[in-house]
Amino acid sequence: MSEPYLHNRAQRAIDECRRIAKMSEEQGRTTRRFLTAPVREVHALLRARMEALGMTVTVDAAGNLRGLWLPAGADGCRLLAGSHIDTVPDAGAFDGVLGVMLALELVEMVKAKGLALPMEVVAFSEEEGVRFGVPFIGSRAVAGRFDTQLLGLSDQNGVTLEAAIRAFGLDPGRMEEAAVDESVLGYLEIHIEQGPILEAEGLSVAAVSSIAGQSRVTVRFTGQANHAGTTPMHLRRDALAGAAEWIGEVEALAKRTDDLVATVGRIDLVPNAGNVIPGVVTLGFEVRHAQDALRKEAEGSLIQRAKTIANKRDLNVEFHCQMDQPAVPMDERLTAILTDAIESLGITPRQMTSGAGHDAMVMAGRVPATMLFLRSPGGISHSPDETVREEDVEIALRTVWNFVERLAAAFR
Amino acid sequence: MSEPYLHNRAQRAIDECRRIAKMSEEQGRTTRRFLTAPVREVHALLRARMEALGMTVTVDAAGNLRGLWLPAGADGCRLLAGSHIDTVPDAGAFDGVLGVMLALELVEMVKAKGLALPMEVVAFSEEEGVRFGVPFIGSRAVAGRFDTQLLGLSDQNGVTLEAAIRAFGLDPGRMEEAAVDESVLGYLEIHIEQGPILEAEGLSVAAVSSIAGQSRVTVRFTGQANHAGTTPMHLRRDALAGAAEWIGEVEALAKRTDDLVATVGRIDLVPNAGNVIPGVVTLGFEVRHAQDALRKEAEGSLIQRAKTIANKRDLNVEFHCQMDQPAVPMDERLTAILTDAIESLGITPRQMTSGAGHDAMVMAGRVPATMLFLRSPGGISHSPDETVREEDVEIALRTVWNFVERLAAAFR
Repeated sequence: MSEPYLHNRAQRAIDECRRIAKMSEEQGRTTRRFLTAPVREVHALLRARMEALGMTVTVDAAGNLRGLWLPAGADGCRLLAGSHIDTVPDAGAFDGVLGVMLALELVEMVKAKGLALPMEVVAFSEEEGVRFGVPFIGSRAVAGRFDTQLLGLSDQNGVTLEAAIRAFGLDPGRMEEAAVDESVLGYLEIHIEQGPILEAEGLSVAAVSSIAGQSRVTVRFTGQANHAGTTPMHLRRDALAGAAEWIGEVEALAKRTDDLVATVGRIDLVPNAGNVIPGVVTLGFEVRHAQDALRKEAEGSLIQRAKTIANKRDLNVEFHCQMDQPAVPMDERLTAILTDAIESLGITPRQMTSGAGHDAMVMAGRVPATMLFLRSPGGISHSPDETVREEDVEIALRTVWNFVERLAAAFR
Repeated sequence: MSEPYLHNRAQRAIDECRRIAKMSEEQGRTTRRFLTAPVREVHALLRARMEALGMTVTVDAAGNLRGLWLPAGADGCRLLAGSHIDTVPDAGAFDGVLGVMLALELVEMVKAKGLALPMEVVAFSEEEGVRFGVPFIGSRAVAGRFDTQLLGLSDQNGVTLEAAIRAFGLDPGRMEEAAVDESVLGYLEIHIEQGPILEAEGLSVAAVSSIAGQSRVTVRFTGQANHAGTTPMHLRRDALAGAAEWIGEVEALAKRTDDLVATVGRIDLVPNAGNVIPGVVTLGFEVRHAQDALRKEAEGSLIQRAKTIANKRDLNVEFHCQMDQPAVPMDERLTAILTDAIESLGITPRQMTSGAGHDAMVMAGRVPATMLFLRSPGGISHSPDETVREEDVEIALRTVWNFVERLAAAFR
């Protein structure tokens, strides 16, 4: 496939993402939550593009826009490809949307080259969890894992998920029809990395081998609030001094454990006054790894360290588990094909763990799934400064083209 | 002086403090800010008590209630004694008020024993700094250090200090008349320790040799906020991990420096979300010591440590000095007499540094000043749980009686 040809496709995908970023709930910022008004504009744009390609377009009960490409005479199973079109508040232009636009470019290439591979492009309605506090609403429906209890959730204006779906002209009673059956080869998601690893390693793209599992724990140290001027050091029970010692242990353990990330991102003090020794410190702690046993071992070891520190300092410490989500491996066979597709371009075939959740994580519960990550300049995402390099988008397109060629051959 | 006699005085002083604690701006809690309505009740109680003793009662322009005791035939200089009658919100019954009630007991003892020592009891109107954000309004006026610019300060309802004084029926234009001249022997303040040292050492009372100097610095570490799942440990610029390392250094340095206290009591994170690496951490840091050189050395050394940590971690660090207040020594001669008065009771004559500011700190700028600390059970103050032991109050009374006897003899 010639260079200028793919260069134009990459440029167009980027331009379209920037155009879609202007379809927003807010003037001057990109904010597009589940089934809000600007989603209709995005659907109109995608529908026009799909119909021009000769795809059959539907919107399922979860608000996912889906375009089916059936090549003349093809009767095999189809490949799903896509990502989400909702955003966080004040978002960038590429998180999610780029995966949809590149899936459309891919269909156009499949069509142009006459490849006998049926495809379905899915623009998932909801992945970020912003409007109803629960993520992956779109992919849950397609993966047949939509719990109808979710319909009772309310957004900040008291609108239920059910009402939001009805207001968009859809029928929440038909949710089950959104689920895919076995006539699917797999699911391919192209997504920006949203982290700094590819940039640090000088790579344009990488295959994702697994979505990391995640523990979230609230840790509370309780000592004794006291006057910072009148309480000598040896008579203190300073909850923050204990918490600070533990934060050091969290960092040290994560640094000496390959591929583990552990973070204290939230800290709340009582009373939080400059001249009072902190009495209570509450920490938001999380740890992620692709291997659940390793993650649980790190979590348990750090909880033990917190107890030791609390004991030594005459503090109390409590733990409240907020999340304990296992890792989700991507499909080995599809990921091997994707890795091979990268290597065939002369690029180091890096496989990496995704530290963040993605629709592919949910889809993997139903169909073989794989993901291609693109380098995120500066590691920046969930920000208006989020961007992509045109050459990386071009390389991503070359990679997925190689991938579908290999896939079509493998399943012929 | 016989035991039962002083036992009754101690009991009465405690009872009066508990009675005054009910004179409050709030039902069920003790909150009595500068010149608010319950201050009139306190003044009425104190005035009645003073007038029954034959004292001459006035209220100066700063709202300090002052009772003068001139023994028949005495013409020497007078001893000032007292403390403050304002409180923090949800206060205990003894912070400040106990010093006023014990000064009154002392006048009654001076009168009963016919000691030729003129005395003035001062119930300072404001020490805590709650209503106008500036402390020591009462003692500033008596010490001749009241800056008239303070009159423009506003409370949370927009009432100026000047208007508050007028509303209480006083004339802010007569502030200078509140200042004492040279015809004063000195100032004696009896106050609860508000810390745990005397309890830890098993002592009822101690003389205060100095009020610690104090540095307050805002320290801000700035790194890079980033996704806690997608950013590997070696590519992080975690502002909280840096701050935590420094908090450990603050504690360690204070622990190895005699009588130094150093505290991080306030911490604010941006963005303070569980799944985001902290980008900015702002700390409220303070350090206190009786020797200014030692305090400044500790402050300088910790600032240097923060820079080293920031440098090592590729963080930025800034410092904003909020306070740099020198230590205030108590008068050597008066404090020696007070210490001798303690020792004569067979009690270990402990001299200690006050880590907190007191009216005596301000008064020391005008007249010789000394302070007697009483044990605070549990080290608890600024709390409804604040209390005193009756036997300690009795020992305090015996101490100050011994003190005035020695003082009268010394200045005869």
